[in-house]
Amino acid sequence: MRQGSMIFMTLISVSIATTTLASNEPIQPIEAVKGINEAQAALGKKLFFDPRLSKSGFISCNSCHNLSMGGTDNLKTSIGHKWNQGPINAPTVLNSGFNLAQFWDGRAKDLKGQAGGPIENPGEMASTHKLAVEVVASITGYQAEFKRAFGSEGVDIDKITTAIAEFEKTLVTPNSRFDQWLLGNKDAINEEEKKGYQLFKSSGCTACHNGVAVGGNSYQKMGLITPYKTDNKATGRFGVTKKESDKFMFKVPTLRNIELTYPYFHDGNAATLTDAVQTMGKIQLAKEFSQEENASIVAFLKTLTGDQPDFKLPILPPSQDKTPQPAPFK
Amino acid sequence: MRQGSMIFMTLISVSIATTTLASNEPIQPIEAVKGINEAQAALGKKLFFDPRLSKSGFISCNSCHNLSMGGTDNLKTSIGHKWNQGPINAPTVLNSGFNLAQFWDGRAKDLKGQAGGPIENPGEMASTHKLAVEVVASITGYQAEFKRAFGSEGVDIDKITTAIAEFEKTLVTPNSRFDQWLLGNKDAINEEEKKGYQLFKSSGCTACHNGVAVGGNSYQKMGLITPYKTDNKATGRFGVTKKESDKFMFKVPTLRNIELTYPYFHDGNAATLTDAVQTMGKIQLAKEFSQEENASIVAFLKTLTGDQPDFKLPILPPSQDKTPQPAPFK
Repeated sequence: MRQGSMIFMTLISVSIATTTLASNEPIQPIEAVKGINEAQAALGKKLFFDPRLSKSGFISCNSCHNLSMGGTDNLKTSIGHKWNQGPINAPTVLNSGFNLAQFWDGRAKDLKGQAGGPIENPGEMASTHKLAVEVVASITGYQAEFKRAFGSEGVDIDKITTAIAEFEKTLVTPNSRFDQWLLGNKDAINEEEKKGYQLFKSSGCTACHNGVAVGGNSYQKMGLITPYKTDNKATGRFGVTKKESDKFMFKVPTLRNIELTYPYFHDGNAATLTDAVQTMGKIQLAKEFSQEENASIVAFLKTLTGDQPDFKLPILPPSQDKTPQPAPFK
Repeated sequence: MRQGSMIFMTLISVSIATTTLASNEPIQPIEAVKGINEAQAALGKKLFFDPRLSKSGFISCNSCHNLSMGGTDNLKTSIGHKWNQGPINAPTVLNSGFNLAQFWDGRAKDLKGQAGGPIENPGEMASTHKLAVEVVASITGYQAEFKRAFGSEGVDIDKITTAIAEFEKTLVTPNSRFDQWLLGNKDAINEEEKKGYQLFKSSGCTACHNGVAVGGNSYQKMGLITPYKTDNKATGRFGVTKKESDKFMFKVPTLRNIELTYPYFHDGNAATLTDAVQTMGKIQLAKEFSQEENASIVAFLKTLTGDQPDFKLPILPPSQDKTPQPAPFK
């Protein structure tokens, strides 16, 4: 018993020490998710992987937010219905629950608001909410799961997007080497990576890339110091608010798992982290990083890769005879 | 100890009894896979899910042989590069190791021979073996895995397809209710399902749909009694052998997991099992099943759904700066 109490005391003091350490930094570690509705999240996981939410029966949420690949498609801009070329780079779904709003322009206030968008976007999944509901509601294997998750019979788009959002909330990536360092493990990152982090802070990157998600909590102008040159037509927040001052204001992307979420920027025009860091320095901070400085920052950024999704491939319930059939070529 | 021995004796006698039972039937239960090279299969699983094997970076083996959906895409014919409409229904990859050859026309002699096909088919993944090898070889996270799996440095198409095939060999689906019944559990299927099985045998379906995979072990003419009407241009084995007698000879598909692998036939023109059973009766057996008979056979067929793939979603190693970039719109 005595030994037990001593261990307990030690744990408490370590816990206090790490909290103190982390709170001095502009970046906070990711904590385990709490308060998830497990039945909704389990259902949402299946729906996230279900291509029957699209008109073609071929595109699921996971097609563009591929959980095997950092929650992105690793393409400059996404492929949608009939191979439509999307207008913007697909943001990662990992840690997206930390964002102040969803989409690059923040036009959806939360994950649930986001989830309904692609389903009915003609250039993405090209279905309608009505059709998606009809499809899902027809599938016997889903019916009991909706009842369990929501306590009532029936399927509607509100339940579908609530379940998907609940699943997405679970997609956090704790335990990155950087978080281990924040939590007191001095050897979790090496000298080069520490140097990169110091430079990341001293150069001003943390003015925007801070907090738990190392971004995602503000809108900032792309091209603050020097205009950003791109063929991409996105205008950022302006598209939502129509205020001139919101032109080219985009949600600052999270840098969590940035090693996995290439290519970078809303237009996907930075193919590598080296490119992205160099451009950011130039257009946002009026800095020209040396090759060595750039390499250190990149080394630091790669310490932000956390535990990736860790679950069984979901098995989807089969369609029934009455389920509306996919129409990929219509 | 005494009780232990008695349990052991009981297990032996059950085992003998079930073997005897199963061997009297034209369908054999699926046994657990043996002799798998685990390192190759683990690597192959990642490659199976990796869209970087395609030119677009968007299409993986799993896109058309979706392991969440019975190893198929549940489309009449598949979607390929730039939304190309494929010529034929994607066969399930589940239990495909039991097939006498691969593809509907048997043009690949085994799983390894099959795996290389779609990668370089311009209407499917639209890459080349050379490019696929260059992409995979550039990815640091894959390099050690190839060494572990093959005992030698380097990546080539032979190793890639060997690994994918080794993974595919693991995709068997034992423990269906029908197999439980074959193995001696009399209550595993109900009276209606038993009636359906008797009818399935007495009507002659087992002439072609037999063995472990309930098919997959012979070529047969589609439209044996009555010509099969379809707009689909596939000519079956004729395309491979150029023998007139091989026209419309197709590999008999497995009926394992048939509940999940809709729509049916090489052209995907039968949307439901009811349709498929009725058409088969008519054109292969000169039988017009009553509605009741059809329903019994369908009930039996649904007992062939076995244990679905049961593994963690693979996490793919990220591309490197030097990795050739996907070209979805070129």
